[in-house]
Amino acid sequence: MSDRARSSHRFPVRVYYEDTDAAGVVYYANYLKFAERARTEMMRAAGADHAGLAAERGIAIAVRRCEIDYLRPARLDDLLEVETRILDIGGAAVDGEQVVSRDGVELVRLRVRLACVNGAGRATRLPAPLRAALARYCQLQERV
Amino acid sequence: MSDRARSSHRFPVRVYYEDTDAAGVVYYANYLKFAERARTEMMRAAGADHAGLAAERGIAIAVRRCEIDYLRPARLDDLLEVETRILDIGGAAVDGEQVVSRDGVELVRLRVRLACVNGAGRATRLPAPLRAALARYCQLQERV
Amino acid sequence: MSDRARSSHRFPVRVYYEDTDAAGVVYYANYLKFAERARTEMMRAAGADHAGLAAERGIAIAVRRCEIDYLRPARLDDLLEVETRILDIGGAAVDGEQVVSRDGVELVRLRVRLACVNGAGRATRLPAPLRAALARYCQLQERV
Amino acid sequence: MSDRARSSHRFPVRVYYEDTDAAGVVYYANYLKFAERARTEMMRAAGADHAGLAAERGIAIAVRRCEIDYLRPARLDDLLEVETRILDIGGAAVDGEQVVSRDGVELVRLRVRLACVNGAGRATRLPAPLRAALARYCQLQERV
Repeated sequence: MSDRARSSHRFPVRVYYEDTDAAGVVYYANYLKFAERARTEMMRAAGADHAGLAAERGIAIAVRRCEIDYLRPARLDDLLEVETRILDIGGAAVDGEQVVSRDGVELVRLRVRLACVNGAGRATRLPAPLRAALARYCQLQERV
Repeated sequence: MSDRARSSHRFPVRVYYEDTDAAGVVYYANYLKFAERARTEMMRAAGADHAGLAAERGIAIAVRRCEIDYLRPARLDDLLEVETRILDIGGAAVDGEQVVSRDGVELVRLRVRLACVNGAGRATRLPAPLRAALARYCQLQERV
Repeated sequence: MSDRARSSHRFPVRVYYEDTDAAGVVYYANYLKFAERARTEMMRAAGADHAGLAAERGIAIAVRRCEIDYLRPARLDDLLEVETRILDIGGAAVDGEQVVSRDGVELVRLRVRLACVNGAGRATRLPAPLRAALARYCQLQERV
Repeated sequence: MSDRARSSHRFPVRVYYEDTDAAGVVYYANYLKFAERARTEMMRAAGADHAGLAAERGIAIAVRRCEIDYLRPARLDDLLEVETRILDIGGAAVDGEQVVSRDGVELVRLRVRLACVNGAGRATRLPAPLRAALARYCQLQERV
């Protein structure tokens, strides 16, 4: 098992009618839903759920930027996998890469920049435990 | 113009890819979105928007029950109309009927029961101005 | 284990941001998505997926009618369960009941009437293998 | 009126409950729905609807790549505007920019690469009438 595979989070997604459109494929916005589900489960596996972050620390994770490449379409009944990797952990931001694949074939590739925000929506420092937890999914050295 | 037509609210909805599914028709859950948009605009026309109700009165309108008959499918690019009528206005609840049609042909028919709820989610009395405003879309005598 | 429990299908649903709305609860239309996912997995467990039904038999399952009672709200991060039971299997239609619960507490209750339709959208007889498979989730005697 | 304003397409979007999430803002994937509605109406204004393109020419417009910057959040009841500009028209691809704003303040900025595809999903040359129509929303000289 490579370092790359070891440090990623994998999450299965089944495609239902709600995800598809009249072109017979998954609607382009819905990959962002799949990606957010995967990030949420990665965070939960790292010990941080939305409710906990909000209640204990008054913070939330917001998406600042997203780049999506649509390589091949997914279809009804497909069983997809979302693989999430952390590329970089900064003071108040996290860069990640997410790949949606079917049977090992890449369909959609996302790059996301996440920001840690407080109740007023302002960028705020990532709590140390969250940084440590996310570092588990980061194959590069964490930035100091 | 009949009494029936006079006392209803009409709202246009265009069908986009996001609304359709791989069967080539509007996905069944999405008619509830169309219906909610129409109710919101009826309320706005009656002088009550969500933010105002929440800020001034601490109340919200929640759906308690919904019955939907799917008669004929809508498709991509269709221009639909949602016609909303109030059937009954009670102390803390409102019953309405909504018909989604295309070129005068009924596609989907909904019956909804709405409740006025406070911040804790408990049923609370409809504010008098809201009752008066909704009565405009009610063809029957308002219940006293 | 009661007869009732034995003949039902259970499906877990996690609530993500995409499912919620600004009132802080699951948006009312989204329970229809959860219900459709559960029915799809019940069908898959019974040996019938959408693609197979379409390709082999030229049929699809359409929702004709839906009644939904919203009893209590679900919230972000909730782990829900959708329990599906078949109430009646007719020649071309199937009646089902679906209950969405959290920790055994009922939140939303749905009654759905499904129809077996051909490529032209016309009601058509349920294939015998599908009838037999669905009967597994029916606690009553199948109608002859 | 500047050249820039003259060559853009403007489309209003009202924010409903369905668009928001439990953080009280528009869910990040839903801006892609707003953007697609705006592109569809721009195409319709240019004489090309989805059904027509599919029926007459056997083609569809697919999104190949999307970059989104989330600058400020939109909220329930907001009236937004999506401004769409064509940046470049190639042989089989179109680059566009879309800005979602509220009262003239930019909230979200998208860059999209669209491809003209045939029934098999392969890139195919943009029909001349469609190129000409889209050129109306392009402030730069069309590429030859």
